[in-house]
Amino acid sequence: MQFHLNGFEPGDPHISDRAQRHDAAGSSGTVPAEVDVLIIGCGPAGLTLAAQLSKFADIKTCIVEQKPGPLLRGQADGIACRTMEMFEAFEFSERVLKEACWINETMFWKPDEAQPENIIRSGRVQDTEDGLSEFPHVVLNQARVHDFYLDVMSNSPTGLRPFYNRRLIDLAVDGTASKDTTPQYPVTARLEWLMPNQERKTETIKARYLVGCDGARSTVRRSIGRTLHGDSANHAWGVMDLLAVTDFPDVRFKSLIQSDQHGSMLIIPREGGYLFRLYIEMDKLHHGERVSDRKITSDDLIAAAQRIFKPYTLDVKEVPWWSVYEIGQRLCDKFDDVPDGDSTCLPRVFIAGDACHTHSPKAGQGMNVSMQDGFNLGWKLASVLRKRSAPALLHSYSAERHEIAKELIDFDREWAQVISSASRTDAKPYPESKQFDPAETQRYFVQHGRYTAGTAAHYRPSLLTAEPTYQHLAAGLTIGMRFHSAPVIRVADAKPIHLGHTIKADGRWRIFAFAGFEDSAMPDSAICALCEFLASAEASPLRRYTPTDDDIDSVIDVRVVFQQRHGNLAIEAMPHLLLPSKGRYRLRDYEKIFCADSSDDRDIFTMRGIDRDQGCMVVVRPDQYIANVLPLNGHAQLAAYFERILIRPC
Amino acid sequence: MQFHLNGFEPGDPHISDRAQRHDAAGSSGTVPAEVDVLIIGCGPAGLTLAAQLSKFADIKTCIVEQKPGPLLRGQADGIACRTMEMFEAFEFSERVLKEACWINETMFWKPDEAQPENIIRSGRVQDTEDGLSEFPHVVLNQARVHDFYLDVMSNSPTGLRPFYNRRLIDLAVDGTASKDTTPQYPVTARLEWLMPNQERKTETIKARYLVGCDGARSTVRRSIGRTLHGDSANHAWGVMDLLAVTDFPDVRFKSLIQSDQHGSMLIIPREGGYLFRLYIEMDKLHHGERVSDRKITSDDLIAAAQRIFKPYTLDVKEVPWWSVYEIGQRLCDKFDDVPDGDSTCLPRVFIAGDACHTHSPKAGQGMNVSMQDGFNLGWKLASVLRKRSAPALLHSYSAERHEIAKELIDFDREWAQVISSASRTDAKPYPESKQFDPAETQRYFVQHGRYTAGTAAHYRPSLLTAEPTYQHLAAGLTIGMRFHSAPVIRVADAKPIHLGHTIKADGRWRIFAFAGFEDSAMPDSAICALCEFLASAEASPLRRYTPTDDDIDSVIDVRVVFQQRHGNLAIEAMPHLLLPSKGRYRLRDYEKIFCADSSDDRDIFTMRGIDRDQGCMVVVRPDQYIANVLPLNGHAQLAAYFERILIRPC
Ligand SMILES: Cc1cc2nc3c(=O)[nH]c(=O)nc-3n(C[C@H](O)[C@H](O)[C@H](O)COP(=O)(O)OP(=O)(O)OC[C@H]3O[C@@H](n4cnc5c(N)ncnc54)[C@H](O)[C@@H]3O)c2cc1C
Ligand SMILES: Cc1cc2nc3c(=O)[nH]c(=O)nc-3n(C[C@H](O)[C@H](O)[C@H](O)COP(=O)(O)OP(=O)(O)OC[C@H]3O[C@@H](n4cnc5c(N)ncnc54)[C@H](O)[C@@H]3O)c2cc1C
Repeated sequence: MQFHLNGFEPGDPHISDRAQRHDAAGSSGTVPAEVDVLIIGCGPAGLTLAAQLSKFADIKTCIVEQKPGPLLRGQADGIACRTMEMFEAFEFSERVLKEACWINETMFWKPDEAQPENIIRSGRVQDTEDGLSEFPHVVLNQARVHDFYLDVMSNSPTGLRPFYNRRLIDLAVDGTASKDTTPQYPVTARLEWLMPNQERKTETIKARYLVGCDGARSTVRRSIGRTLHGDSANHAWGVMDLLAVTDFPDVRFKSLIQSDQHGSMLIIPREGGYLFRLYIEMDKLHHGERVSDRKITSDDLIAAAQRIFKPYTLDVKEVPWWSVYEIGQRLCDKFDDVPDGDSTCLPRVFIAGDACHTHSPKAGQGMNVSMQDGFNLGWKLASVLRKRSAPALLHSYSAERHEIAKELIDFDREWAQVISSASRTDAKPYPESKQFDPAETQRYFVQHGRYTAGTAAHYRPSLLTAEPTYQHLAAGLTIGMRFHSAPVIRVADAKPIHLGHTIKADGRWRIFAFAGFEDSAMPDSAICALCEFLASAEASPLRRYTPTDDDIDSVIDVRVVFQQRHGNLAIEAMPHLLLPSKGRYRLRDYEKIFCADSSDDRDIFTMRGIDRDQGCMVVVRPDQYIANVLPLNGHAQLAAYFERILIRPC
Repeated sequence: MQFHLNGFEPGDPHISDRAQRHDAAGSSGTVPAEVDVLIIGCGPAGLTLAAQLSKFADIKTCIVEQKPGPLLRGQADGIACRTMEMFEAFEFSERVLKEACWINETMFWKPDEAQPENIIRSGRVQDTEDGLSEFPHVVLNQARVHDFYLDVMSNSPTGLRPFYNRRLIDLAVDGTASKDTTPQYPVTARLEWLMPNQERKTETIKARYLVGCDGARSTVRRSIGRTLHGDSANHAWGVMDLLAVTDFPDVRFKSLIQSDQHGSMLIIPREGGYLFRLYIEMDKLHHGERVSDRKITSDDLIAAAQRIFKPYTLDVKEVPWWSVYEIGQRLCDKFDDVPDGDSTCLPRVFIAGDACHTHSPKAGQGMNVSMQDGFNLGWKLASVLRKRSAPALLHSYSAERHEIAKELIDFDREWAQVISSASRTDAKPYPESKQFDPAETQRYFVQHGRYTAGTAAHYRPSLLTAEPTYQHLAAGLTIGMRFHSAPVIRVADAKPIHLGHTIKADGRWRIFAFAGFEDSAMPDSAICALCEFLASAEASPLRRYTPTDDDIDSVIDVRVVFQQRHGNLAIEAMPHLLLPSKGRYRLRDYEKIFCADSSDDRDIFTMRGIDRDQGCMVVVRPDQYIANVLPLNGHAQLAAYFERILIRPC
């Protein structure tokens, strides 16, 4: 982290306003009359979006939530590797790493063939494939994830806090919104203020953009006339967080248990070393039946778990939270209010998270995908509102996220079928039902680890995602996928760091220039020529899109990775662009120049298949996805790429 | 970290009282009339001690400070590896790692022989020897270290906050304090309350123990009739924190510059990437002269730095803090109020930190040693106050810490001489003055890295520190030195962790039992026999010293490390002692059983020279120092060791 740029400030550098600390209370008073972005719902999608927007002092955001305060318990708990990478961008990954439970291996249990009423261990697999991410797969109460975002928000320059006790009643979009005569605040929302004294009051708020992060029963989705398609429910699952004593030996591992007669169960160990969660399969629902019709109690769930657990015992001491769940993999056609096929109309209302796609809880996707929605939309809204991009950029949100959601739902549906024991549904006794062979489950699990980790998401070529013309220059940094971080050494102070961790959620683009063999930015080198182009050429995207009074790295942040050892590189001879003068004192930024770690298994050039002779440039979006890979002398292509996306400051 | 043991609690598990957040204001109102421990001074020594005591709900601590609020800038900044290990015990190492500047290499600069008025780089060394600690050497504003401790305190069960604006005037110890007729609160202190309205009021507070952490001009030291011996001043050094622009290439490295004519200078890069600190050598003081007589200004310091820096430039933009320093290596004979040689009298007043030893700032020891004083005294006071040890334990504080301070001061005096350029003091032009050969400096630097890292501290055999009879069973875990952590795998969940990080600042003793080859705690194995002894024998220290209603690990925490891979160990077959039932629900604790990491360079048995055939037991004190190494069947010796230190609950 960097700070003190514009003067020494005592105190926690995470907190812009020192008088402020995290506080569960939220904003008081009435909501503002007009805002740039109105977010409905303080779930993972809404909070990620709010946290992203809160970073920009020039954007006015309002986030409302019908509940009286922050979430305290329950709901999702799985945090995928990819999500941890995003948390690093929001600068709280270390809090999660410390507090969460790490999922290191997954255990598989099946009926004992000798005594089918008992379960026995059938296998164990490493949870996350080596090298998939620098972060582990962890689990932590969704409420704590909310807390971290709330801290980011209240610590941010805007000091953003949610307005609780506000329910969106309806919204209207000014019909002229797509035309040039667009009103400033085309969206009008009506909120019901559920006041503590039971009184109810209606507030009206106008917004440039409205984002419905209001969950599976989304009012916003309904308001823009969209619907979720797919199975609404087939299997019912119970989920419960427990403090309990058991002699089941794998209670601190993620364990998938398939019993002979009593269905299947998933164990998720949880933060703090004592708590764990059970997902318990219930009967299949009849057509049209809702799980609530079953009047299931927590005692029913415990009894079911005890049956599945045999010969192990389960002595429950406390149930901090439980719920009964209907699996439904459902999806909206489009995640904004632009009619399909209409290219003249610009989106004004978006939906994100469970509002536009729902997943079964056991694949652990709901929370993770919802947050990635928020991250994707956040920088785009910020870029448009801050006049760095034309509003057409916003079309890409629905296009990109719909495709990802669809892939995940397809995977999720398959996965839910695999782990749902066949024993009761097709009445064939185990192990005849080949389809539900535990070995098969295990293979499937390994194969799909990348999906579950969230690292498989791949945006197809589009305005934002370049064609893979030069992909061979960095075979392991796939265009359209997230920038897969690798270790490097910072030259100015020899600190080992992760290159990907320089990508913070600050709305900036990155160009990582990987130098060719022996290129140390000396005159006439490719790196030097690139820096000259970027610093001086009329066509340079840095010159074109950076507002005059802003730091040179405020829109596009250029960093270079050399192949020499840091002791053999002379920063004093580097182009000024790589030691830019910044802030009111024009202090030098020493954190743009890196070199590969010289130890064999930590060399970024080897790890990511970067062409050692030619080097290359990797263009990374503000949400950590790779937009383009270009040769170092691809100055014109670089200029052309950004000309599609950024607009010149007026 | 572990939590939820006695019920699910939403919110940040670091914070016992959820209504509370970090707050710079301190306690309000008058000080309590009677306390267990009164601490004078909120420097690093006082805050470490307070943080340690704050962990115990049954101890009433009061900490007072004459200043109106927490420190905001300046003073020390170096954080040694050993200090980071202690911060891990206080559970804020990750905050420091994230926020601090890492010192990775140190650079040496000398006069250019061709042009002696200019400096050139003469060498670079890795700052911290590989494997010295799992933590790096970092630098961070002392004020931020205070903040982290204040957070620990206010987040603790006692919610401890300092009373600011209180100056200790004097103190009196009841003369009968050494006898059996000891009054409950033998120490009486008078405080001056410097109220905001300029009014002054005197408060009286009685304490069982008083600790003077009141810095180099300690009132407590004077009150108990002790004095600092040694040079009070010889060299004057200026120190300043800067935001500046320079073309000196190593400004983000710790750099030691010896100029030809203008003395020497030390550069310390600082947190946030822009700030740095300079230590600048000033003229030698005349006998009896004080540095304040010189009327040195910050402009004088800048001018001196600019002279030393030639040919590089220094363009200063802001000076957040500066000071002028007199080097003095001074030491008290004894750190408590017990007359030397008197064995009947028990200590009631202690001094810690700069109050009993002072160091030159450039060796970066003052803050680090002071905190270790507080950590050493903290658990001992807690153990006596909580009736787990007899008060005679308290004699060991002065004995142990005096020896360490003396060693460090000897080192510090030498070091200060080495880095102080000879050019002006003996008027011999460089490089004739062989004694100050830069290569020599560099060698000395490497050789003394362990001192500076704080990992060389070694307590000699005593009541607390056993004779090294069985040292050969764990050659790399030296009795009397800090437990040098190494990686292990937790068996219940396959999580890779650092074994030393299980030692938290909770006042507990640890027994780490390293199993012999193929011992998996099966019946008749040495581990099983040890567990049986500990769980059931009359002589077991766990049975003897653990109060009946407390968890079995509340006084002595037993953990086992096996040699097998975790997949080959069956926790269900382990002795109950290793899966103890705890808390009001009697939930199982799954975090006592470990195995070695199977990768070659991470195997704790290899790394720490543990006898693979026999295994061994390592007894670790609450402050992370190794008290004893014993064979696994050394049950009687183990019992005898604890019988010297712990007392049975009545
Ligand atoms: C009861 C429950 C249990 C769950 N259990 C699991 C689980 O065990 N495992 C798992 O992986 N996932 C679980 N999930 C799913 C997971 O929590 C979601 O996938 C994830 O929270 C989606 O995030 P989101 O931000 O899209 O929506 P949500 O987290 O649903 O957030 C939507 C928010 O909008 C608010 N809201 C809704 N309508 C309005 C309105 N009109 N006005 C104002 N505010 C409104 C809601 O109060 C809510 O806070 C559970 C969800 C729920 C609701
Ligand atoms: C001005 C200054 C600059 C320093 N610069 C450096 C540096 O550049 N590098 C370095 O390594 N070290 C530096 N040090 C030394 C380093 O800060 C100390 O070694 C370290 O703080 C020692 O910690 P301590 O807790 O023993 O004492 P201190 O940090 O000195 O704390 C003592 C506290 O007690 C309070 N106090 C004193 N008397 C009373 C009383 N009668 N009643 C109530 N409260 C009282 C003081 O206000 C102070 O807060 C500096 C110290 C000072 C004072």
